[in-house]
Amino acid sequence: MRTQVGIIGAGPAGLLLAHLLHRAGIDSVILERQSRVHIESRIRAGLLEQGSVDTLTEAGLGERLHREGLKHDGLELRFAGGNQRIDLFGLTGKRVTIYGQQESVKDMVAARLDSGRPLLFEVSDVALHDIAGEAPRITFTHEGRAQELRCDVVAGCDGFHGPSRAAMPPEVLRVYERVYPFAWLGILAEAKPISHELIYARHEDGFALATMRSERLSRLYVQCAPEEDVANWPDDRIWEALHTRLGRVNEGPVIQKGITAMRSFVAEPMRHGRLFLAGDAAHIVPPTGAKGMNLAVADVRVLARALTIFFREGDERLMDGYSATCLSRIWKVQRFSWWMTAMLHRFSEDDPFEHRVQTAELDYVCGSEAARRTLAEQYVGLPFDE
Amino acid sequence: MRTQVGIIGAGPAGLLLAHLLHRAGIDSVILERQSRVHIESRIRAGLLEQGSVDTLTEAGLGERLHREGLKHDGLELRFAGGNQRIDLFGLTGKRVTIYGQQESVKDMVAARLDSGRPLLFEVSDVALHDIAGEAPRITFTHEGRAQELRCDVVAGCDGFHGPSRAAMPPEVLRVYERVYPFAWLGILAEAKPISHELIYARHEDGFALATMRSERLSRLYVQCAPEEDVANWPDDRIWEALHTRLGRVNEGPVIQKGITAMRSFVAEPMRHGRLFLAGDAAHIVPPTGAKGMNLAVADVRVLARALTIFFREGDERLMDGYSATCLSRIWKVQRFSWWMTAMLHRFSEDDPFEHRVQTAELDYVCGSEAARRTLAEQYVGLPFDE
Repeated sequence: MRTQVGIIGAGPAGLLLAHLLHRAGIDSVILERQSRVHIESRIRAGLLEQGSVDTLTEAGLGERLHREGLKHDGLELRFAGGNQRIDLFGLTGKRVTIYGQQESVKDMVAARLDSGRPLLFEVSDVALHDIAGEAPRITFTHEGRAQELRCDVVAGCDGFHGPSRAAMPPEVLRVYERVYPFAWLGILAEAKPISHELIYARHEDGFALATMRSERLSRLYVQCAPEEDVANWPDDRIWEALHTRLGRVNEGPVIQKGITAMRSFVAEPMRHGRLFLAGDAAHIVPPTGAKGMNLAVADVRVLARALTIFFREGDERLMDGYSATCLSRIWKVQRFSWWMTAMLHRFSEDDPFEHRVQTAELDYVCGSEAARRTLAEQYVGLPFDE
Repeated sequence: MRTQVGIIGAGPAGLLLAHLLHRAGIDSVILERQSRVHIESRIRAGLLEQGSVDTLTEAGLGERLHREGLKHDGLELRFAGGNQRIDLFGLTGKRVTIYGQQESVKDMVAARLDSGRPLLFEVSDVALHDIAGEAPRITFTHEGRAQELRCDVVAGCDGFHGPSRAAMPPEVLRVYERVYPFAWLGILAEAKPISHELIYARHEDGFALATMRSERLSRLYVQCAPEEDVANWPDDRIWEALHTRLGRVNEGPVIQKGITAMRSFVAEPMRHGRLFLAGDAAHIVPPTGAKGMNLAVADVRVLARALTIFFREGDERLMDGYSATCLSRIWKVQRFSWWMTAMLHRFSEDDPFEHRVQTAELDYVCGSEAARRTLAEQYVGLPFDE
């Protein structure tokens, strides 16, 4: 098999890249480890920056997103017994949209299937070859047969644990990482949300977050220990923690429960030879700023443009600039995600200075129009570096 | 001896308090451990917020300050090989003024002596008594004689190591502290300053700061180890570090050299019975934000008003609110000082994530008008909480 761009992974990064390339007349093949049912039902973040919505809309992927997505003009911060709304729209003229990542994935899978171009599910044994040269190859097993995909470019959109980043020579790769001393315990509950907008709470007991999936579905999180066993958190304990940290929330049957690990991670560079990493393959953010999928969209915008210029004109300059262009913005978003996390979580039992500084920071952020604007402009999405 | 307010310490806090009280017709006695020559020549910070200048001016202490102080409309940030000016005046409509703390002290000592009210130098054995009741006393030795000062109120303006905070019962006092893994090595040099405005540099080797005392006197700092011996830093090594971190600076004879420790410290509450702490007696900030003297001025504004209402009307409500009123602003300023310190210093040899986040933060701050404004509005001084 041969194509122009071999795409590993059918998450938002790989699917969007394939879609943008197809619209530019560039051929690709997508190889996905999981089944279609799996990727279309995998619950991930669901908050889209204005720029991500614009990107999807311009790509012709916005029809259902605009119909079903919930537009949010603000968010709430709760701390020290008080409640402060950050007027995102008033401060920036932009909004965020709640639209489950799996819904975007469904839209993009449908668009891919419409295009008639290959999207292979349940692919295994994926391995990258000759990425340093101009004729890279991907070998894999599909439907029981060993196969080879020859291409001009490989796009590694295969997430944190995928084979793409691991295929880069260790001596060219530098990894930056921060692990946090806590995780999120999240539930999906059949309960009326307490607010349409997201509520971020900083409490002496730890962080909590209330968000909604629909008028009848609440998504709620509490900070917990990093290696927490879900069995330690029966529903009663979760509801009690939520009431304490957020103020009273509406209870209802818990239909899903899980732990979200917290990690900041960046791999540099994001390109080696003809291999380009995009999305979680290159970087992970803690979920506090809701930036994971948005960063993937931003990478793919830059990569699709660079590959388009390359295939149309043979000009490699944008490809050469891909890593630096993406990383400049990625590091700012990493910083924002770290900052939101640091401001709202309890890090240690025994650092009272930290607690006072957190509360002072929240006080300052809420009391200063300029500071509220920094939070808002980063939350709705920094401009793309293009 | 008897007075209304017994003031321990003739630093900026004690002297300004005495002055404001005198203008309100309230009597005080100041007890100072050092000699007049000592306090008038002790080099400390020299950057005054707009609000501090306004306070001194309203108190009739601004004549020489306005004539000799250097007004700064901006500052510079240097990092990653680049240089970015923060337009303090353009962003906030306010300025900062460079005027050595010892010059303010001279002005206030002169005003005190003009008033004819007591300012006792070289006082020793200061001890506080009966602070919980309505008739506190201070015992001390002056000119070889043991004496007692009876008063209605004691103002502890005696700095971090003074006896006032130590006189508060340990069970009511809560202390918050952060120690940093570095210090500043500062020099005063007979060399033409490279800029009128302050230059803060973040470099892989560590922080550096360039400021001026006059057209011919440069004040320059480099980050060094916390327990550094000045002997390890001959002049050549200092100049080399400055050239590396700041870009070329003008060299000249080094006429002073010293280490400044870095510490964040807050004691709560700032009042116990009839004892009120102000300035460094209650809180220390790392010097990065130049907030030490400005915090003292802010405390004294609140305290002078509270005591004036108390002595005029017998109303204790502002006295009762003193600690909480001051601490709300103090914690924001602590946070700012910590933030400036965290963004600009090298904390560890082996945390590359931290380095990238620092650079990204500086990139973001310089690139965002809202973020520049948060830096500027805190640097020129947050509003007084009154």
